[in-house]
Amino acid sequence: MENYLQSAMNYSAGHRQDFLDNLTDFLEIKTISSDSAYAVDVRKGAQWLADYFKKIGAGKVQILETQKHPVVFAELSQAGEDKPTILVYGHYDVQPADPENLWDSAPFEPAVRDGQLYARGASDMKGQLMVTLSAIESIQATGRLPVNFKFLVEGEEEIGSPSIANFLSTHKDLFKSDFVLNLDAGMIARDKPTIVYGLRGLAYFEIQVSGPAQDLHSGVFGGVVYNPIQVLCELIAGMKDNEGVIQLPGFYEDVLLLNEQEKQELAQLGMNDAYYLKETGALKLHGEKGFSPVERVGARPTLDVNGIWGGYTGEGPKTVIPAKAFAKLSMRLVPNQTPEKVKIQLHEYLANNAPDGIKWEMTQLSSDPASITDMDFLPTRCLAASFEKIWGIPPVFERGGGSIPIVSHMQNSLGVESVLSGFSLPGDNIHSPNEHLDLEVYYKGIDTVIDFIFRIAESCE
Amino acid sequence: MENYLQSAMNYSAGHRQDFLDNLTDFLEIKTISSDSAYAVDVRKGAQWLADYFKKIGAGKVQILETQKHPVVFAELSQAGEDKPTILVYGHYDVQPADPENLWDSAPFEPAVRDGQLYARGASDMKGQLMVTLSAIESIQATGRLPVNFKFLVEGEEEIGSPSIANFLSTHKDLFKSDFVLNLDAGMIARDKPTIVYGLRGLAYFEIQVSGPAQDLHSGVFGGVVYNPIQVLCELIAGMKDNEGVIQLPGFYEDVLLLNEQEKQELAQLGMNDAYYLKETGALKLHGEKGFSPVERVGARPTLDVNGIWGGYTGEGPKTVIPAKAFAKLSMRLVPNQTPEKVKIQLHEYLANNAPDGIKWEMTQLSSDPASITDMDFLPTRCLAASFEKIWGIPPVFERGGGSIPIVSHMQNSLGVESVLSGFSLPGDNIHSPNEHLDLEVYYKGIDTVIDFIFRIAESCE
Repeated sequence: MENYLQSAMNYSAGHRQDFLDNLTDFLEIKTISSDSAYAVDVRKGAQWLADYFKKIGAGKVQILETQKHPVVFAELSQAGEDKPTILVYGHYDVQPADPENLWDSAPFEPAVRDGQLYARGASDMKGQLMVTLSAIESIQATGRLPVNFKFLVEGEEEIGSPSIANFLSTHKDLFKSDFVLNLDAGMIARDKPTIVYGLRGLAYFEIQVSGPAQDLHSGVFGGVVYNPIQVLCELIAGMKDNEGVIQLPGFYEDVLLLNEQEKQELAQLGMNDAYYLKETGALKLHGEKGFSPVERVGARPTLDVNGIWGGYTGEGPKTVIPAKAFAKLSMRLVPNQTPEKVKIQLHEYLANNAPDGIKWEMTQLSSDPASITDMDFLPTRCLAASFEKIWGIPPVFERGGGSIPIVSHMQNSLGVESVLSGFSLPGDNIHSPNEHLDLEVYYKGIDTVIDFIFRIAESCE
Repeated sequence: MENYLQSAMNYSAGHRQDFLDNLTDFLEIKTISSDSAYAVDVRKGAQWLADYFKKIGAGKVQILETQKHPVVFAELSQAGEDKPTILVYGHYDVQPADPENLWDSAPFEPAVRDGQLYARGASDMKGQLMVTLSAIESIQATGRLPVNFKFLVEGEEEIGSPSIANFLSTHKDLFKSDFVLNLDAGMIARDKPTIVYGLRGLAYFEIQVSGPAQDLHSGVFGGVVYNPIQVLCELIAGMKDNEGVIQLPGFYEDVLLLNEQEKQELAQLGMNDAYYLKETGALKLHGEKGFSPVERVGARPTLDVNGIWGGYTGEGPKTVIPAKAFAKLSMRLVPNQTPEKVKIQLHEYLANNAPDGIKWEMTQLSSDPASITDMDFLPTRCLAASFEKIWGIPPVFERGGGSIPIVSHMQNSLGVESVLSGFSLPGDNIHSPNEHLDLEVYYKGIDTVIDFIFRIAESCE
């Protein structure tokens, strides 16, 4: 076994340029899932991935339809039935690249500068996905996989995975496995390999506020109608008090509080004020009073306006009172909040606070609950050991601020737990202009996964 | 004289289709002044107008350059030096047509439905401008103008007339005249010809609020930074109290209060709650406590957000905390407020209320003071008599809510007073989708101006 491991590691070390070239090909495909104008590109991305699975020896590869973007399924089961089957989760879709003018190089023309690979999806998560594929390629090229693999790579993660729950419930047998390896969770710093044991959920809404029947001239009618932008701003302003506490009725009722041990672990992550000031570029931090920044991100629910628009937004002045104003806003949820209950709370808040004579609508755009996984889970311990070997330091255990809807779906539909980790860094600008991937971390990630595969085959003995 | 008047009236009655066709040609030109993409169309509009002036017998026609869009000058001075010279003010530029998908017919393909001519600029103010030109055409075709005319038709009214003050100060002799006829002020209802004796001013700003150095992922960073959209909404919400009273420091200090006679006149205009509910389509009126709707529009300063944008505004969800958020907002000013002082008040409000660590900028996009004209002015009395003859009812005297910057510029640079009226209706959707012009009002307007021209030649005798 040790020889096979060393051969795979040698292969990995000798093929870094090839791994980079493959990833670059993948990143050139505009797999933007939120905008239907890119539906053909999304499908092209799925096909690219299917071809790659065949190249690294997958015995069975399928592009499976959903209501929107397809799921890529692949199976490598040469290890035999007595060996564990790992289900690798990933997504091949990416966020929109706008505003494109803020990118230093084109978002879909990958470019390396100072050891960083710049492209939309480089970090989230085409790069993290190709870590596992490159590890498997290294083992397959120099020997044989000691465990079985299945892959579920979806194309809808960035739009809240609307198809996945239904898809999993109708494909339970296909995805039968022992546990899920999910490398979409990143690490908290370059020198701090990270295993995530908790994730926040997400409830995402669009709100529309309507006043006059049509846009009005602000001279002729300024002073007689409630301007919908003003109403929307007042509603949003009122959603938090002066101390950053969210004012939706009952919003904190179900929130699971951190215990003392968790608080201490979070405090030791090194994610202090200086860390967040550097990563965000903000001049000052801000958030719910009474909690540290790392607690606010990992263990407290938050509410953010993700977009707002209304009236005239072009060049120069236009003296209009618009008929409507819009906002997208979302709450990050912690255990034991549910998106369903938060939807009711938002509805109640709007009903209580929208002025008389103003119409409003709310639409839920995505929804998934928070999740907590078990820190003593065998695959978690194996992965921790691989990190310690390759990085020379044990991983930190984190509660992550983001949402990975698939984790709770895997638990609910397939009855399998997920191991969450990854090789994305907080400063990678995921979802922003100039997204990039640290190539040294990327290559170290491949070695970590190679080591993990051999280690799990031996049950970490 | 009476014969010439009658002949001109007969010509007008017989050429309505021609007048409509001419206006339609003019409306097809996309003279959108706020967007530099239309600069060529704006110039085409100026040329169309210059050609039309030549067609109706103008002895001198010039397209005069400014820093942005040209002014069209025309002179018809056959009446002789002993007759008065009327300076007609107009603008050939129009507002943007967005959102175009809300128009029932294309904004630059004029269409008549139910006696209404639908097109951007039909009412504001290509239609109102062509009223005067058609009146002059009717007189020229059947006799000779009994007074002299000069025209100043600008292409920057919809962007706050940035060039006009400087332009007028360098062309004082060219525009020497006895008074200004300005038909850009409209009428309050179809059966209520209106002369405006007061106008509100305008101070228009763009605000930018900046937080983090770049867009952030709302999962990874939600809870540690002040979201710029949240800040912008809180700032806007705080600009008014619960009773619609504007909170900028010192905002009401200089406001000239209405006297009892003015209050009574305003109350008699018939612009009551029912009127404003119908015209706006709002379910409920809203505005500064303690004043009636017509007082709030005509004699009280207001503040409206004209546009807001920030974050993700495309299809579906995107979990972003944006780096910046933006708003356009403007105040309508009444005598004796000044745009300069209001700019200082807004600056002070933002400085006092923007949270620590948040950067903000404000830019003034346009600026003009309020104005009041004399109700006993001879041309005003002549116009009132013409309205009474053609419409069978005396005009109402109004303080208008809109701003016509040129009025104070004419006073300051040329020393001439303006007579303000017009044939635009409150329900014409100016500045909105489906702008339209009531053709019956349009034709009656032409007859009114014909009558006015002969009446002013005789000093209303």
